[in-house]
This record gives sequence, C-alpha cells and structure tokens, in this order.
Amino acid sequence: MSLLDLLASRAPRMKASEIRELLKLLDQPDIISFAGGIPDPALFPAQAIADAYASVLGGAEAGAALQYQVSEGYLPLRKWLAGEMGKLGVACDEHNIFITSGSQQALDYLGKLFLSPGDTALVTWPTYLGALQAFNAYEPRYDRLTPDGGNMTPAAYQAAAEASSTSAKEGGKVKFAYLVPDFANPTGETLNRQQREAVLDLAGELDIAVIEDAAYRALRYDGEAQPPILALDCERSGGIENARTLYCGSFSKILSPGMRVGWVCAPRRVVERLVLMKQASDLHSPSINQVVMHRVSEAVFDSHVEKLIDAYRQRRDGLLAALEAEMPDGVSWSRPEGGMFVWLTLPEGSDATALLARSVKEARIAFVPGNAFHADGSGRNTMRMSFTLADERAVGAGVPRLAKLMKG
Amino acid sequence: MSLLDLLASRAPRMKASEIRELLKLLDQPDIISFAGGIPDPALFPAQAIADAYASVLGGAEAGAALQYQVSEGYLPLRKWLAGEMGKLGVACDEHNIFITSGSQQALDYLGKLFLSPGDTALVTWPTYLGALQAFNAYEPRYDRLTPDGGNMTPAAYQAAAEASSTSAKEGGKVKFAYLVPDFANPTGETLNRQQREAVLDLAGELDIAVIEDAAYRALRYDGEAQPPILALDCERSGGIENARTLYCGSFSKILSPGMRVGWVCAPRRVVERLVLMKQASDLHSPSINQVVMHRVSEAVFDSHVEKLIDAYRQRRDGLLAALEAEMPDGVSWSRPEGGMFVWLTLPEGSDATALLARSVKEARIAFVPGNAFHADGSGRNTMRMSFTLADERAVGAGVPRLAKLMKG
Repeated sequence: MSLLDLLASRAPRMKASEIRELLKLLDQPDIISFAGGIPDPALFPAQAIADAYASVLGGAEAGAALQYQVSEGYLPLRKWLAGEMGKLGVACDEHNIFITSGSQQALDYLGKLFLSPGDTALVTWPTYLGALQAFNAYEPRYDRLTPDGGNMTPAAYQAAAEASSTSAKEGGKVKFAYLVPDFANPTGETLNRQQREAVLDLAGELDIAVIEDAAYRALRYDGEAQPPILALDCERSGGIENARTLYCGSFSKILSPGMRVGWVCAPRRVVERLVLMKQASDLHSPSINQVVMHRVSEAVFDSHVEKLIDAYRQRRDGLLAALEAEMPDGVSWSRPEGGMFVWLTLPEGSDATALLARSVKEARIAFVPGNAFHADGSGRNTMRMSFTLADERAVGAGVPRLAKLMKG
Repeated sequence: MSLLDLLASRAPRMKASEIRELLKLLDQPDIISFAGGIPDPALFPAQAIADAYASVLGGAEAGAALQYQVSEGYLPLRKWLAGEMGKLGVACDEHNIFITSGSQQALDYLGKLFLSPGDTALVTWPTYLGALQAFNAYEPRYDRLTPDGGNMTPAAYQAAAEASSTSAKEGGKVKFAYLVPDFANPTGETLNRQQREAVLDLAGELDIAVIEDAAYRALRYDGEAQPPILALDCERSGGIENARTLYCGSFSKILSPGMRVGWVCAPRRVVERLVLMKQASDLHSPSINQVVMHRVSEAVFDSHVEKLIDAYRQRRDGLLAALEAEMPDGVSWSRPEGGMFVWLTLPEGSDATALLARSVKEARIAFVPGNAFHADGSGRNTMRMSFTLADERAVGAGVPRLAKLMKG
C-alpha cells in the first residue's frame, strides 16, 4: 500500500497529468508524507489478530468461519456492537446492527438507498472525500450543511424542488444530511452538543435522515466526549426504531483497515433494506474477518484504544507545536481534540495544489490540498495534514521545510 | 451459516409467509438438505489457510496485510491469476485482473457498468439467481439467451428498442449476455465449443458484452475441458484488449467462500472502470485475505482441486445412481460433468414449491424450487439438488423418501 496511490485516489479534482507528475516525484523514499489518512501500521495489534486467526482456524468454528455467512453479518459481533452502542447511549439490539465492508460500503449503500439523480444531499464544506465519491454514483446535487445555522429553510428547499421538477436535475428533494461529528475528516473539528441538536432540528424540519459518520469517534485525546447524534435522536424520538439518524462505525482506525469491517447502527427497517442490498451486491462481508474482529475486540479493543490515544496524542501535540513555531503569519489551523487531521488555512488567494507540487519537488513534503474535500471545488487555500505517521523526526524535519517554502 | 437462511435468501419469488413457515420447519437437525449451493466445509483447506494467516501475520508483510490497499487488488495475486488465465488460453497480465469480494461483486459492478433502467440483459432460462438479484438493482428487462439459436435478431432488438424509446422501460438496448458456461448453476449443464462460438457470434451481431461466470470451472469430474469463452474471443478478436468477454472467477467453490475473493479478467479499459467503482463503493477487498489467498493458491490450489474432484465426483455419482434407482416415471434430470448441481424436471403441471413444503414437513428433505432461477418466474415444475453435502448416508436416506413423496 502506498500513501501516494492513496493521495492520487483521493484527489480526483487534481488534473490527471498533475497527479501523474506528482506520483513520479512522490515515489521516492526521502519524501515525508502528511498526506495519507491512514493509521500507523506499527500500531496495529498484529499479535492479537494473529492469535485470533490461529485460534479460530484451529478450533471448532473453522468451517463456519470459512463458509458463506448471512448478509447481515456474524451474530456474536452484532451483539457485541449493540452492547457498545448501548454504552454510548443508544439502546439497541443485534437487529439494529448491520456489518459492512468498512464504513465506505455503508456510505455507498446509504447513498443508493436514499438518492435518485437530482436529489439533494447536505454535506459540510469541506467534507470527507470518500463520502462524496460514494454519493456521486447516485448523481445528487450538494448543498451546504452549516451546523451553526444558516441552512436553507424547508420552504426554500420545497420551492427549489418544485421549480426544478421538470428538469429533475437541480434542487431536487433533500434526502439526508451527512457529517463526521467527531474529529472530522478533513478538518479535525468536533461538533458540540448544541450543534448536534441543531443538526437534528434541521433534519426534523426538513424531514430527512442524518448520516452520522463516526469513523474517528474512539480517538479522543482530550476534552469531553460528546454523545453520538444517534443517542440524542433516540432521546428525542423515544428510541432507535423512531430515529432518523443512521450511525456508521468502523474498526479501520482502531484495529485494522485491511480487514474491512464496519457497521451501521439504525432502525430495524433500515437494516432490513441494507441486508437486501448486500445480498445482491456481495452476499456478505468476509466471515472469517468478522469472527476474528469479534474475538480481537472482546480481548483488546478498549486497551488498544488507550494505546493509540497515547501515541497519536503525542504526534498531534508535536505537529501543533511545530506549526506554532514555524508557520508564517496568515496561516491558521485547527486544534483537533482527536482523530488524525489538522486543517490549515492559507492566506486568501493561495493555491494549496500548486504548493503541493512545489513542496514535493523542493521540500520533499506531501499533504492533501483542501479543495478535493469541497463538493463545490472551493477551498483552494486549504490543506490537510495527517499526524498519525508524523513522528518526531518527520515533524522536526518536515514542518520547517514546509514553512520555509510558504514564506519563500 | 444456515443452509436454511440461504434457501430463504435465494428464493425471493416464494411468498414471505411460505418462507417463514418453511424456515420454522427447516430449523431442525433431522432435515437432509440438498438445497444450499455451498461447498462442503469439511473439505476446506483449513490447515493451509491457517498456516498462511500465521505466516503473513508473523512476518514482514503483517503491516501491509492489515493496512489499506489499492482498489484493484494485491499485485502478487493479480500476477498469479494472470498466469492462471494464460494457462486457459487467455494471454494477459496484471492490468487485466481486478480483485472482487467474491464473484457476486463482479456481477453487481458489471450490472452497474452496463445497465440503465429499461436496458435488456440476455440470460439463460433458468440462470443463476444471484446474477438476477445483482442485475435487478439496475432495473433491466430480461430476454432469453439460447446458445443453440433462436435468439432475437439484431434488427428485432433494434425495432423493439425504437418502439419503446418513449417509455424507456420496455425493450431497451441490449447490453450484455450473461451465462455460466461450465456446470451451470442451477442446471449443471456445460456449453460445448460450438455453443460457445454461437454466443460470441450473437454478441458480435448485437455488438454487446458477454459476461462469463466461471465460478465452477475448475470442478470438472469427467469429460474434456472446454476453452473459456474469453479464450475463444481472444482468438477471434486478436487479444484481450479487443475482447468483448468479461470473465468472472472465484475462489469460493475451491478454497473458501467465507474469505470473499474473486476476480474479473477483462480488457484494461474495463478494469479501469471497475477500479473507480470499487474505490467509491468499498475502497478495496480485504488486504489480508488477498495476501493469504495468494499464498494458499500458490501452495495448494492444484492439489486441492484434485482432492475436491475426487470427493464431489463420488457424491455426484451417488446422487445420480439414487435418482436412477428411485425416481418415478416422468421425472428427468441433468447429468453434470462437474460443479455442484443436478437439475430435475418434474412432469408438466407439477409445482416444486408446493413439493418442497410437503417434502420438508413429511419427508424432512430440502431442495430449491426451480422457478426461483427463471427471470420470468416460469419453471415451476423444476428443482435443483446440490450434491456437495450429499454423502452416502444423506443420499441413501433422502432420495428414496423424496421419491416416495413424488409418487404418493
């Protein structure tokens, strides 16, 4: 796996020729990369995972773990996840849990479930690029979700939908709001409780679903945990069966992305629709990975999260300190309480894509230009830096070089 | 994994109430099932798979195997598969190989690639139910593919498409022919070379793609291997880059369905389209399963196929002998040279779904009614029996009881 491929795959708004050129430059061992949104492989619980594979394949469950499986997923894993959701304030059971091949698949299925061409999806500006890629397949238009207020009113959406009903391509019915409320990709920002309630207020007014992408939720380095939007929704609506929020979880940032296990926690009627989709699209996620993920999670999930928090907190602090010391005036950045990313805003008129090209060539530093994360292609003066692979050496060598380039 | 869930999931044309009733009856240990189209878990190479997981996770590749991976799949596996395709007469390289999460995902992506609502897909009557489920999501109409001739002419399709261009729901443009040429699911039948050439002739006349589902190809118990349709296509067209055939392979029937690894072998331009789809829909198939599948395949693929052939040939012979000895007049069945299935045709006017209900209740035998495999819901007097789990005891006890019920 190459960070560089990931960068290329994640920046479709860059011109193909730009990407090819960059890739040639990037394919060299001396590049310091803040680009990939990936966990540090040195921190995978490889021994616990190896032990679980050995124990499953050497035991009575080997046949079942290598055999076909039901589309909703491995029952003990679903029960375990229902228990974990309960701890977060979401009372539910295994019928509310649907296992996916990573949360990317959840976004794809939810896009397929809700969107017809011309429908509107509300997303933050910027938002997770993979979500845009998943939803794009269903040809929506995007409108900006602003948890602090200032969204269009239901009447305005209604008028837009009616005005466009002949073309069906512009301003169609709003179907859902998608957001990453904890340590967002790419900004690192977290919504407070009031903002979460405001998203639910808006969703109620528009009568739409909320897709809560909780991929980074467990990785909080300081500050107080916020309740999932789904938990607030259950409080309002009287329980998960009445909720409009669909919670997408993932093991990728904690245990292993390469095993591709995620989940959706949702009302049973939604889970049933997703099961039918999965049956038609890939039958089920790999049985053995689900069995192993269940065993590893029961054994080490909580202790491993603590270990990651210690390691990544240090790296975040190191990156923030270096930015503080080195960045020129006019550059600002987020101070995330968790997750993987710091979001930089360069002076108005700057172009982070052009900066990346120079940065790779002259300073041997990589990051992701921010306009890739904007549904409308704006944000050219923004960029994302990941700190999960940014050890002391990388930060110490990389940030001054990057700053010097910006100043020059 | 329960055969019974699989039966339910595979027979959507049965009424929900019928299925629920059956499931209650089926959920009992004394049922003898010829229903599930699944390999015998006792024949999985569990030790070789366990060894490979242990070796990968204990070695230098552990981090990469647990990390994100490129969407097209693990390069050494793609190279190995390109070599295997070469042995079948398809000269190609890794750029022609795309790794999927089982061949079900290949069918889903190819459906998505080719079909718009109202387009026509040509399929055999009957055909693999999972293919219909995958394609149904894209709202095609189906027309009957008859490799022995008698298909509609290009002019007739053209006229139908034009006549319906206003509604766009009936008789739209024909996009592909889908078939399982070797030991088909559900009939067990294999196309000879002349029939394969006829499919290519037809596809050429209609200028459409051919989707060759080769899930059972390696499981030949007697008779002579036929070249893949893709190999014949390469001969005609001058090479894979000019071919119209897209070959879908799978490890599910040989090594393990629960690991969910399959592949598409196709012109590079098609692979590139599939890679973009995969990136948006689930990023990639699990890295570790691909690494392990590569190691296991290099080590035991050929020898394991031999072992399976010995075991399943015996079971097929046992089932055919029992049918010969027990079935009443008026019942006929296929004599497959490989694969997993025998296809029975009951006297005209019989109803295999009704027979199944009685069979489960009175004889404690399960199979799959054949109308589920017909895009037009016909075939009510047909049924599928799988022999992969049908050991001597099951056949000896089950077939006489089933025959008695048919006679009564």
